[in-house]
Amino acid sequence: MQVGIDIGGTTVSVGIVSDQGAVVRRAQMETRWQQGADTVIDRMCALLDGLLCKQTGAAQPITHIGVGCAGKIDREQGAVVYSNNIGWNNVPLGKRLRDTYHLPVYVDNDAICATLGEFDAGVGKRFDSMLMVTIGTGIGGGLILNKKLYNGYHGFANIIGHIVIDKNGPVCSCGRRGCFELYGSTTALVQRAQTMAAEQPDSLLAQQLSAQGANGRSVFSAIRQNDSAALAVFEEYTTNLSIGLANLVNCLNPQSVVLSGGLCREGEFLIAPLRKKVAAQLYCGESALPEILPAALLDDAGMIGAAMLPKYR
Amino acid sequence: MQVGIDIGGTTVSVGIVSDQGAVVRRAQMETRWQQGADTVIDRMCALLDGLLCKQTGAAQPITHIGVGCAGKIDREQGAVVYSNNIGWNNVPLGKRLRDTYHLPVYVDNDAICATLGEFDAGVGKRFDSMLMVTIGTGIGGGLILNKKLYNGYHGFANIIGHIVIDKNGPVCSCGRRGCFELYGSTTALVQRAQTMAAEQPDSLLAQQLSAQGANGRSVFSAIRQNDSAALAVFEEYTTNLSIGLANLVNCLNPQSVVLSGGLCREGEFLIAPLRKKVAAQLYCGESALPEILPAALLDDAGMIGAAMLPKYR
Repeated sequence: MQVGIDIGGTTVSVGIVSDQGAVVRRAQMETRWQQGADTVIDRMCALLDGLLCKQTGAAQPITHIGVGCAGKIDREQGAVVYSNNIGWNNVPLGKRLRDTYHLPVYVDNDAICATLGEFDAGVGKRFDSMLMVTIGTGIGGGLILNKKLYNGYHGFANIIGHIVIDKNGPVCSCGRRGCFELYGSTTALVQRAQTMAAEQPDSLLAQQLSAQGANGRSVFSAIRQNDSAALAVFEEYTTNLSIGLANLVNCLNPQSVVLSGGLCREGEFLIAPLRKKVAAQLYCGESALPEILPAALLDDAGMIGAAMLPKYR
Repeated sequence: MQVGIDIGGTTVSVGIVSDQGAVVRRAQMETRWQQGADTVIDRMCALLDGLLCKQTGAAQPITHIGVGCAGKIDREQGAVVYSNNIGWNNVPLGKRLRDTYHLPVYVDNDAICATLGEFDAGVGKRFDSMLMVTIGTGIGGGLILNKKLYNGYHGFANIIGHIVIDKNGPVCSCGRRGCFELYGSTTALVQRAQTMAAEQPDSLLAQQLSAQGANGRSVFSAIRQNDSAALAVFEEYTTNLSIGLANLVNCLNPQSVVLSGGLCREGEFLIAPLRKKVAAQLYCGESALPEILPAALLDDAGMIGAAMLPKYR
């Protein structure tokens, strides 16, 4: 048994995870990072204490604690060097948890943990290599090669959201022009849908956005109802997403590509046209096409992957 | 001692290579692939016989033959499945050489052999991981991770010339739009220089192209003489090249990037501005910057790498 913790901008998830990657017990709290790191960690420890108390005497002992946290992580020290999502700077998270629980503590980036979770206990289980593409506010990546995490030489690999696909495109927050995430993120999808809705205020798309709010779910609701404005957005979005994915496949030729993030709930409705468009763009054709699949664990991937960290280091 | 052979569209190079990657004896011939595979292989064997005869009795025995050949290779059989550069289809090259010399024969793609050669005996010697970027008619790639060749799951990785960097750009021979090699290859440099020379017929660039012919060398000759037209071409070219390289570094974060092909003869004159532009585009800044270096072995890399094939399989 091990503890897995996933610290995100809005939610902290804590779980007791079996060696097989099943979540045995779980608890959640709002991050409320504005309270500062010390308070957040105190509340998180109280939450974990609650879970651990419920462990009966017959339960297997906890071997370690794994934590996934948004931001740049010092893996050696288990410290959060910098995280703009939760406003942390040089927080000795690993030390705090080690001092409290007297257990080995492993800390890594949340996207990496989500990749490990999905690979170890989710849709990636049957593969040797997997590229995880997380579609959300931006686009994040995680890569498993030969059942090992690939982090690059300095630990900065898989910045796949910032691969330029349109060198004359708009300026990205990273300073480059036309980065993949400006076209393939959920943010990009929703923004394009909003523009389209403004152009076609009588469309079902416009109605859905104003009724349900501007988010991936409302856009897909209009797409699934065959609204022509929404379908045009979908066509453009899947083309853009396929360009970035085909770039990655031409470069890496992985065994599998797993799409995670809220949009992956759309399943084959999103993946099927995407698969076709990626295949059409590969230099070596369909014979180089990886299995492209939606993630299975959804929000649990980060927590489970954090618990599995020592297995992949 | 081993034999290394590099079969290209214009030249076939045959060499006897030491275990340390030094070329002990060498011979070359024109490919003249129009004669057909059988004739080319016969002539190649005659060339190799000549080299082997000169081996004195005291020389170490030859352990195997390695061959690099442009095109798609069946590594198991050592066959050339398809090569548009030399017009070969299903040529049982490995079998022919095995039957003739009664030695183990290894066949692989020429770009992969060049990568291995550069890694084993060239500028890559001191690294654990290396991305080789070969700049020529197109852009080819080869990747070493943890001292092993990375070929991808289906053997189709490293198609880095066909990463789209301008999704609205001109159509590439592969069918996609705005591929990296349309902007970063020697072909692209020379075409851009020709356009510029036509626009500025009085420029030194125009003079160099008409005097020396339109090729990388004549373009760089005008650049080195600070011709303003040539400098504008150089500025644009290095920017485009840096966009593709920064994409690869954001994705792979390799320890080193080695540039090969004729242009790399320009050394630091080309690499220094390129390095600066790549660093400026990395998401994690200079701390993610690999060593970017020109290849050292030039035309010998393929032959040496072919000889080293069994070491990396």
